[in-house]
Amino acid sequence: MEFSFKTTHICKQSGARTGEFVTPHGVIETPIFMPVGTQATVKSLTPDDLKNINAQIILSNTYHLHLRPGEEIIKKAGGLHKFMNWDRPILTDSGGFQVFSLADLRKITDEGVEFKSHLNGQKLFMTPEKCMQIQNDLGSDIIMAFDECTPFGATYEQSKTALDRTIKWLDRCYKVQNNPKQMLFPIIQGNVFKDLRLESVEKVRPYIKCGVAIGGLSVGEPKELMYEILDTIKDKMPENSPHYLMGVGSPDCLIEGVLRGVDMFDCVLATRIARNGTAFTSKGKLVIRNAIYKDDFSPIDSECDCYACKNFTRAYIRHLINAGEILGAKLLSIHNLHYLLNLMKDIRQAIKEDRFLDFREEFYKKNKDYEEK
Amino acid sequence: MEFSFKTTHICKQSGARTGEFVTPHGVIETPIFMPVGTQATVKSLTPDDLKNINAQIILSNTYHLHLRPGEEIIKKAGGLHKFMNWDRPILTDSGGFQVFSLADLRKITDEGVEFKSHLNGQKLFMTPEKCMQIQNDLGSDIIMAFDECTPFGATYEQSKTALDRTIKWLDRCYKVQNNPKQMLFPIIQGNVFKDLRLESVEKVRPYIKCGVAIGGLSVGEPKELMYEILDTIKDKMPENSPHYLMGVGSPDCLIEGVLRGVDMFDCVLATRIARNGTAFTSKGKLVIRNAIYKDDFSPIDSECDCYACKNFTRAYIRHLINAGEILGAKLLSIHNLHYLLNLMKDIRQAIKEDRFLDFREEFYKKNKDYEEK
Repeated sequence: MEFSFKTTHICKQSGARTGEFVTPHGVIETPIFMPVGTQATVKSLTPDDLKNINAQIILSNTYHLHLRPGEEIIKKAGGLHKFMNWDRPILTDSGGFQVFSLADLRKITDEGVEFKSHLNGQKLFMTPEKCMQIQNDLGSDIIMAFDECTPFGATYEQSKTALDRTIKWLDRCYKVQNNPKQMLFPIIQGNVFKDLRLESVEKVRPYIKCGVAIGGLSVGEPKELMYEILDTIKDKMPENSPHYLMGVGSPDCLIEGVLRGVDMFDCVLATRIARNGTAFTSKGKLVIRNAIYKDDFSPIDSECDCYACKNFTRAYIRHLINAGEILGAKLLSIHNLHYLLNLMKDIRQAIKEDRFLDFREEFYKKNKDYEEK
Repeated sequence: MEFSFKTTHICKQSGARTGEFVTPHGVIETPIFMPVGTQATVKSLTPDDLKNINAQIILSNTYHLHLRPGEEIIKKAGGLHKFMNWDRPILTDSGGFQVFSLADLRKITDEGVEFKSHLNGQKLFMTPEKCMQIQNDLGSDIIMAFDECTPFGATYEQSKTALDRTIKWLDRCYKVQNNPKQMLFPIIQGNVFKDLRLESVEKVRPYIKCGVAIGGLSVGEPKELMYEILDTIKDKMPENSPHYLMGVGSPDCLIEGVLRGVDMFDCVLATRIARNGTAFTSKGKLVIRNAIYKDDFSPIDSECDCYACKNFTRAYIRHLINAGEILGAKLLSIHNLHYLLNLMKDIRQAIKEDRFLDFREEFYKKNKDYEEK
């Protein structure tokens, strides 16, 4: 068996769990945050940088890699792991979200989606079968079903139609996916409508082997609503599978997600705000461009032991960011990803010690940026 | 004595020399290439990256650091070494070249230069004394005299006027520079006029303690002309000082420079072309964007053992550069700097083994991009 998942501990205080997710490229301790390497690189970092911050798994993107360099090149390289020189697990998103958010969308039918590349306007057609073929060529460990994402604000009818289509597409993905080294995750949709979410859970259930995702959240709706939906489906989620909440990665959401049964997260937030000069710290967010840091020779976060904090000061990193220097983006990216990966490690520890609710309370006390929900 | 220079070997075949340049932050083996960290960072690289490619000394820039973040912040940090976390030698350029090439130049008088910042248009006034004060605040090991650079194409009269002023300014620099931990390098000017160059050598001679620079070359003139000027002044250069040829760093120029008595070089070329997707290789330049490399899974240079060549393929780096990913710029920067530093190491070895002319011939045979001069 190339894939398996087991719960290793359930926190007596909170009910949150730790787990072990076995994949062909290694065992992932959950709950976990996955750094995002959209274009076969986590922006500004080398694979060694990622290992130094103990990244267990990274995410890459089917849509972007299909457009550039094209899956045939990556296949010829021996797969995405070899292409980018990363020997730990990789999850590839299906591209559904990108087709619906980035591309110039032309036509959605039950057959698939016609769209134009956001890079060069080339007309393309994506189907569930094509999406599976691309991810098969990429050779990622975890592959995502091709789904239709509705934006926040979509009507009930629109969400229901998209959900039904997503299930039909899932069935087609399932039928063509037969690589034992790749695990297909169905995606639960249903927008912000609780009955649709519950319906979605029931309808994807027959397709879940070892892992299921929750998509279409954190797309503009209030956090409370996201938490409510997680609460709604929590008890219906299969225990023997990891639960992956797609595109969610602010520190408070990670904590609230874990409390609501989520095992896996990904988000570009950490690296995106890093490139803009914002750091996560043990006391909340720090905007390094602010003039007060111009002669602050302390590290970004005195409680942090990442490469950036051990070697450089706020004043220096502020200078780099203000001067548009790549090293500034890199140092803050290392720091922010280290922060999230370390947060997940602390969360796992708190769960194992049956004190996750205390941990959560402590987090909100120290982090004034976030409000407890 | 904080500074000293000695010739360690003279190649019996070519007359080229190796040397040891002692500075407060370590001994530099010459001839050497210095990576350029204009804004207190060698673009895209960490100090560890630089140590991994055996950078012995780096260069930074007075003009840029004066404008941003300002020398008072760097002084407060404990100097440039601490600010950027680099504990090996640093040379700072005086900013003369930048004032004359980057800034909006307003007025040159014997007193100094009035100019507007290229960043925000702020009106500034630079004098030899100010230039020394800034470099003193930065705390670099080697500091450069404030000079007037004339562009290629300047008349004899213009060049003569600038030369005379440069000597007057040098005298003022010399009078205020009294930090024993900093070595002031005078700069030989005179544009492409051989008699002016010879005059300049004689006039700066009294100010040379341990090191002298040759400025105003590689600014648009044909390479042959630069080599002729180097040939002209070669025998007049002080033997007991390192000779630094400013802003020169293409592989062929390094070889030709060493043959003509140069001990130190710097240039942004290696890192600039890296960011644009061009690599130096043992067989000449390689433009990684070219479509022929899209599925070329060999390293940039099969003879190279840098981090980029040991871990990544041409196809992957091409993808990164085409996708505008920072990692592509970083990997090529590491490779190109490693190439130049390794070239200098090979040059030193060839000199020590009295076969530098053979080495040079071999280089031109393998590198079809360059012509022997």
